[in-house]
Amino acid sequence: MKKIIIASTSTLHNGGYLEYLLPNLKLHFKDVTEILFIPYARPSGISHEDYTSKVALAFSEINITIKGIHEFENPIEAVEQAQGIFTGGGNTFLLVSQLYKNNVLLAVEKAVKNGTPYLGTSAGSNICGLTMGTTNDMPIVYPPSFQTFGFVPFNINPHYLDPIEGSTHMGETRETRINEFHQFNSQPVIGLREGSWLEVTGDSIKLKGNLTARIFTRNNAAYEVAPETELNTLK
Amino acid sequence: MKKIIIASTSTLHNGGYLEYLLPNLKLHFKDVTEILFIPYARPSGISHEDYTSKVALAFSEINITIKGIHEFENPIEAVEQAQGIFTGGGNTFLLVSQLYKNNVLLAVEKAVKNGTPYLGTSAGSNICGLTMGTTNDMPIVYPPSFQTFGFVPFNINPHYLDPIEGSTHMGETRETRINEFHQFNSQPVIGLREGSWLEVTGDSIKLKGNLTARIFTRNNAAYEVAPETELNTLK
Repeated sequence: MKKIIIASTSTLHNGGYLEYLLPNLKLHFKDVTEILFIPYARPSGISHEDYTSKVALAFSEINITIKGIHEFENPIEAVEQAQGIFTGGGNTFLLVSQLYKNNVLLAVEKAVKNGTPYLGTSAGSNICGLTMGTTNDMPIVYPPSFQTFGFVPFNINPHYLDPIEGSTHMGETRETRINEFHQFNSQPVIGLREGSWLEVTGDSIKLKGNLTARIFTRNNAAYEVAPETELNTLK
Repeated sequence: MKKIIIASTSTLHNGGYLEYLLPNLKLHFKDVTEILFIPYARPSGISHEDYTSKVALAFSEINITIKGIHEFENPIEAVEQAQGIFTGGGNTFLLVSQLYKNNVLLAVEKAVKNGTPYLGTSAGSNICGLTMGTTNDMPIVYPPSFQTFGFVPFNINPHYLDPIEGSTHMGETRETRINEFHQFNSQPVIGLREGSWLEVTGDSIKLKGNLTARIFTRNNAAYEVAPETELNTLK
């Protein structure tokens, strides 16, 4: 049975790394003593080692040890044997490139669909959708494909931002960008605000946190959904 | 001799489409009676026809007619015979995909390097750099490559945005994104604020408009350059 947390962000303003999620992570990973961490997205170019140390520190609060996937000679085997998997945020283009390059995309997909509990934040959440086509990141490297895990039958836009009132900037708003996405792609997109996450349990997909989320579907006006809304009919 | 305007944006807040640039465009296209317009980037999903009409209206102010590249049976021939070329803004991933798909990337590159005057705004400016790797756009389609015209020996970041003071949003700032780019790419990046443009005349590359621009180079601190700065040593 799938058991997945798809979080908009790892960190809230004025909060520590993963802090707001820890009570839920304790439950989510309740039978897990060690998590396999995928540091490929390297936020601000941080090394795999430093990123893994940062994550280990956060998870030590709930007595879970962390091992980085880069520490294993055979990353596919590491995925197959993992008790739990966490993919951290950073640059989605880099993350997806590395998942393909190291040949672990299918392995993670299979493990998680078979029940290995998974946590994604930011870029690590983006890849839980059908494609990475609604990332906010810069294309700093060229991945072999935009196709991602598809743990949910729609796309994710993490760090969703409402238009800023009174802004004089002429760049596109997030909503405009997602509408452009729908010119060429038919799957719905969920805009997850910072502090929101999706909890996938088997066939159920529930919005969690205190905020509403914004749903974009092709050819229809966007709308808001409240926390605890069941989203498994969204496709 | 190359003759290129690379503008951060087509439109300033409270201004009309291309309005702030028109006096310069009159000089830039002074021997030109008809411009070939490339509408591939389709901002907000606007059709090629509607986008071309919008551009034609703006250029009618300076007595230049506009023909969209989509109106030609042979787009390569259209490029080769163009008196001037304008690529408008929108989504860079879509624009680059279409340039490759219609086989015109090399034709435009060749024409402009041979002296056909070129104007780019936003996405149409982004592609004047070595790659589209510093676009702000969403990857709504998968282009066959991120490589672009390389009219200048660096990358462009149009609509450059300074970090917003006091922001509580945890998504990456533009500067953080460009620093991530430099983990994997060696060419400098110029952050062009709205209202700025580069004027390329032969081997000269000058910053124009009233604002400074921000230069990012690998392994060095970012710095500002003033209007009229010669940038042809930046590489």
